[in-house]
Amino acid sequence: MKLKYSVFLGNVGNCFDRYCAEYSAPFTMEELFDRATSIGKLSAVDLVMTEEMMANKAQIKECLAKTGLKVGSLAVDTFANPIYKKGSLSSTEKEIRDRAIADSKAVIDFASEIGCDIVTLWPGQDGYDYIFSADYIKERTLFADGVEELCRYNPKVTITLEYKIKEPRTHSYISTVGSTLLMIEKIGLPNLGIALDYGHAALGYETPAEAVAMCSMYGNRLKHIHINDNYRLWDDDMIVGTVHTLEYLEFFYWLKRTGYNGYLVIDQFPYREDGRDAVSESAEWLDVLQEAAEKIDQKEAEEILGKRDGVAASKFMRKILFGR
Amino acid sequence: MKLKYSVFLGNVGNCFDRYCAEYSAPFTMEELFDRATSIGKLSAVDLVMTEEMMANKAQIKECLAKTGLKVGSLAVDTFANPIYKKGSLSSTEKEIRDRAIADSKAVIDFASEIGCDIVTLWPGQDGYDYIFSADYIKERTLFADGVEELCRYNPKVTITLEYKIKEPRTHSYISTVGSTLLMIEKIGLPNLGIALDYGHAALGYETPAEAVAMCSMYGNRLKHIHINDNYRLWDDDMIVGTVHTLEYLEFFYWLKRTGYNGYLVIDQFPYREDGRDAVSESAEWLDVLQEAAEKIDQKEAEEILGKRDGVAASKFMRKILFGR
Amino acid sequence: MKLKYSVFLGNVGNCFDRYCAEYSAPFTMEELFDRATSIGKLSAVDLVMTEEMMANKAQIKECLAKTGLKVGSLAVDTFANPIYKKGSLSSTEKEIRDRAIADSKAVIDFASEIGCDIVTLWPGQDGYDYIFSADYIKERTLFADGVEELCRYNPKVTITLEYKIKEPRTHSYISTVGSTLLMIEKIGLPNLGIALDYGHAALGYETPAEAVAMCSMYGNRLKHIHINDNYRLWDDDMIVGTVHTLEYLEFFYWLKRTGYNGYLVIDQFPYREDGRDAVSESAEWLDVLQEAAEKIDQKEAEEILGKRDGVAASKFMRKILFGR
Amino acid sequence: MKLKYSVFLGNVGNCFDRYCAEYSAPFTMEELFDRATSIGKLSAVDLVMTEEMMANKAQIKECLAKTGLKVGSLAVDTFANPIYKKGSLSSTEKEIRDRAIADSKAVIDFASEIGCDIVTLWPGQDGYDYIFSADYIKERTLFADGVEELCRYNPKVTITLEYKIKEPRTHSYISTVGSTLLMIEKIGLPNLGIALDYGHAALGYETPAEAVAMCSMYGNRLKHIHINDNYRLWDDDMIVGTVHTLEYLEFFYWLKRTGYNGYLVIDQFPYREDGRDAVSESAEWLDVLQEAAEKIDQKEAEEILGKRDGVAASKFMRKILFGR
Repeated sequence: MKLKYSVFLGNVGNCFDRYCAEYSAPFTMEELFDRATSIGKLSAVDLVMTEEMMANKAQIKECLAKTGLKVGSLAVDTFANPIYKKGSLSSTEKEIRDRAIADSKAVIDFASEIGCDIVTLWPGQDGYDYIFSADYIKERTLFADGVEELCRYNPKVTITLEYKIKEPRTHSYISTVGSTLLMIEKIGLPNLGIALDYGHAALGYETPAEAVAMCSMYGNRLKHIHINDNYRLWDDDMIVGTVHTLEYLEFFYWLKRTGYNGYLVIDQFPYREDGRDAVSESAEWLDVLQEAAEKIDQKEAEEILGKRDGVAASKFMRKILFGR
Repeated sequence: MKLKYSVFLGNVGNCFDRYCAEYSAPFTMEELFDRATSIGKLSAVDLVMTEEMMANKAQIKECLAKTGLKVGSLAVDTFANPIYKKGSLSSTEKEIRDRAIADSKAVIDFASEIGCDIVTLWPGQDGYDYIFSADYIKERTLFADGVEELCRYNPKVTITLEYKIKEPRTHSYISTVGSTLLMIEKIGLPNLGIALDYGHAALGYETPAEAVAMCSMYGNRLKHIHINDNYRLWDDDMIVGTVHTLEYLEFFYWLKRTGYNGYLVIDQFPYREDGRDAVSESAEWLDVLQEAAEKIDQKEAEEILGKRDGVAASKFMRKILFGR
Repeated sequence: MKLKYSVFLGNVGNCFDRYCAEYSAPFTMEELFDRATSIGKLSAVDLVMTEEMMANKAQIKECLAKTGLKVGSLAVDTFANPIYKKGSLSSTEKEIRDRAIADSKAVIDFASEIGCDIVTLWPGQDGYDYIFSADYIKERTLFADGVEELCRYNPKVTITLEYKIKEPRTHSYISTVGSTLLMIEKIGLPNLGIALDYGHAALGYETPAEAVAMCSMYGNRLKHIHINDNYRLWDDDMIVGTVHTLEYLEFFYWLKRTGYNGYLVIDQFPYREDGRDAVSESAEWLDVLQEAAEKIDQKEAEEILGKRDGVAASKFMRKILFGR
Repeated sequence: MKLKYSVFLGNVGNCFDRYCAEYSAPFTMEELFDRATSIGKLSAVDLVMTEEMMANKAQIKECLAKTGLKVGSLAVDTFANPIYKKGSLSSTEKEIRDRAIADSKAVIDFASEIGCDIVTLWPGQDGYDYIFSADYIKERTLFADGVEELCRYNPKVTITLEYKIKEPRTHSYISTVGSTLLMIEKIGLPNLGIALDYGHAALGYETPAEAVAMCSMYGNRLKHIHINDNYRLWDDDMIVGTVHTLEYLEFFYWLKRTGYNGYLVIDQFPYREDGRDAVSESAEWLDVLQEAAEKIDQKEAEEILGKRDGVAASKFMRKILFGR
């Protein structure tokens, strides 16, 4: 069974970093939808609901209708809007928090309207850069309270928290799979889960497959997946499969074993590549990697895992990858 | 209020690494106790209860009586004994798990006997090195079950879990403050807490002060502290204060604020230094760092933290450290 | 003797990252000069000569005359201009290389015109992101050839190479102190040196003081210094002194010992802070850190270093910092 | 053309780390040779010439004769002998340096005697742990002087320097490919080269293939290769191919392109595995990885590399690995 692919719409376009404001020319929303469609392997798009996007809901619906693409998830923009530069739901300023709640509810409403049942919060600005500049307990509590309010707002929409150990802040509150599951556990609502970004897990020295396992064992909380590749020390957001190979196979093995059936959302920053082509490449890799993982015999795998032995694991991996 | 210091007894002796089996000559237990006592700043020792130590309980009691040192905590040896090389409480082999339970209970009994109310589990071998070599869910579940059994065995003794993201395994199960608090939360017993190793927190890209705050907010679970210094990328186990300065000040500020009153256990690997002298140095640094932190005005600090501003934090830190 | 301070002009303004295009409102060039001057501790500015800046040479000269600020160094813009997104002097496309040479020569000319004797090359885009996407030998050779041509163009202007192990590329060619000194050694011209960025050294797991020593021993190549702070795993570009303390003291000790008398150029990215205030803070820290380092007795220091002993080093550091 | 394999003899035996003194029972030298031979894919062994080994030269010769194994290289033991715990050739104590020179010359003599033309120096203890504890210039100079003396001692034996950024010291002098090539360049003798450890390169955030290219372009200095795998943040010394796949392919591609024809020396620490089996696994992986790399069309590869494009590189890698 192959998982469906989505992409962050902007990924098929252009991007910038802290040095270069425009690596290549921008595209219109319509062009981006067309570019995404042209890849031919995507079932959906994920949309970051910036103010501009919120002002273009009609056009979004048109593009969706025209292209036949679904929406994997809507992400609240609490990271690109400078109003949230010192935090959104964790902000100690009530007006900012209220605004973050309002922005999120508006996205939940739009999700509901277009039949999308997942809203993603990536609280990239909720954290701190300097020590002695944050009341960790207070801000974490505020954040959790905000999340709870959003979950209660519309129980039919699942809120997914996307964790990442750092960037843009030097330290994020929603940082690791463990601390995120802990917050979810304490809030205790069913429509709350994790949006697992493969690269974020790798960046935090997590084994992505183990993160999948943990989401499963602590309440079946894995609801959405972002996918990309990196060199483990930074969220390089590269084409899937261009750095790691075997770890993806283990990842897909555990996704299957724990019954994940949501989207794989391609989420990368192709600064110097053509965005469309880079996304297309990720889709191609996802095809071959999933096929390779699909061939894993579940019985045999359980047996190998049960041996707890590096040599057996090594043999097994070589067999999966090279057939011998 | 200054916190009391303990030391891992072996720290005042010699040590080895994976290349050199003996950096300097070993000491007898009596010599180690004498060396610890000679430092003059230690209230206690922490003891790793290896088989050899378990066979010398009488001598331990004698040394304690003679030197007047207390015991900060007893650590179960589930990492130096090769029987546990593939895991202790998480082992999929029942005999190994049973042995780990039995060893731990024997240490709990001895703790009880000598009036020590903390037993530390550092499950260094509980984890994995290779992908495709572990059933993450099964092994994590076994580990949690074992911990629960130990907590129930003697409710008067607190079991503290010492987390560390890696080493000696390339990946540990008890890895981060978040995942450890999550396991504790699910077990839900009062005599279960965290032994926070400052260096392990730093290694995992945690801000040690934030780890303290999280232990406090999620059930007041901070029960023991190991202290040392490192360059953040490895558990270098160096003399306290030789790398970081300001982060210790924030750490002590949060310890005071959250009411920690347990031990600071010096825990380092002075391969090339005289062990006694290296421990003595850490105690000296702990004195000056705590004094500096003690001068922090709690009102002012809360105000600064409330500003969520790097510039204000910077000014505050410089004032604490340099008086201007 | 206190070293003079400069700042990258843009640092007192606003900045962006790959998520948020504008953390705060921009300033005009005149405002930036005024803000830099208002700090009161800066002798100079360093200027990144973007196309826009090159088109405003007259205004730059006016601002310099009006504020009395010197120019620490001019940096060629081979990183913000998207034309160089796949490399400048290392580009395998001749037109791009020619353009990079021409742009650099124009900056050298302007430097000469305003009496600035250092031109900095930070080849941030010269490197690669993906394996199998670069001919390492060819591109490194092209880069070195370009540097040689620039050195020969005007022997009175020193070209300084600023190394950094990664970002914006996942891998840079001019990456570490060793490989950069090697390239310089092979080119063998006197007007070629290193612009050492403190944070880049830390990011590459170099001890900044050792990098200073290496620049000195291999041909006295340290010609310019960028200064900021980070958590060692990324070029966080924070306010000087907010993370590290002792390592700056060792850094200043070695700067004095090896006779460095150039600028300390504040180079940071205060996304969420007021830029002016953040730079002012760095200048304040540089004052107190240099004062503390100044008190180091050179004789005593040499004696301590000669002991090669962690305990002696620890005592010495505590004495420098806390007086006991 | 497949490269020949060697192994560090001890690798087929048992090992220890800083916590556990003996993960499994030791083997005699004869047993180790038999175990190495039994793998069937090794042409040679590499030997660390500890005092014990130096005292058993006759037995070594017997074992070599009996098994028919060649010697890839002899390594001077300047890391396991505690006499060198604060450095060997870089030591500021003349007696230690003299001893290091004498030990090295004795190994060179034995190499000459048995027809081995490479002697490896891995100066693991030459570096420092604490700042303010080393005179970087003096010690680096002493080290280089010692290396030069060894090169001149017997021009028929090539001295290879094995670099590693850290461990066992927190900072090594012979740290990166660039700084090592720089030292070699300055010494300028023909019988001096690099022993490139794949894992050390990865640990230092080098692309191993690029390190190969640099060794080639700066004087054709690659003379020996140690091979193993790791997660990039520590020298995990794991079975080849169990973490990375594509980077090995690029590595072998560049080895072929630059004409390397020396040994691939398996060098790992199989703490919990059977040593023989773990080495055998590495040899199996080397076979399949080299075969895959062998299929790379050199013309096509050069064309792809020349494109400097992530998408093209991605397609090429997928084709090499999955045939499409």
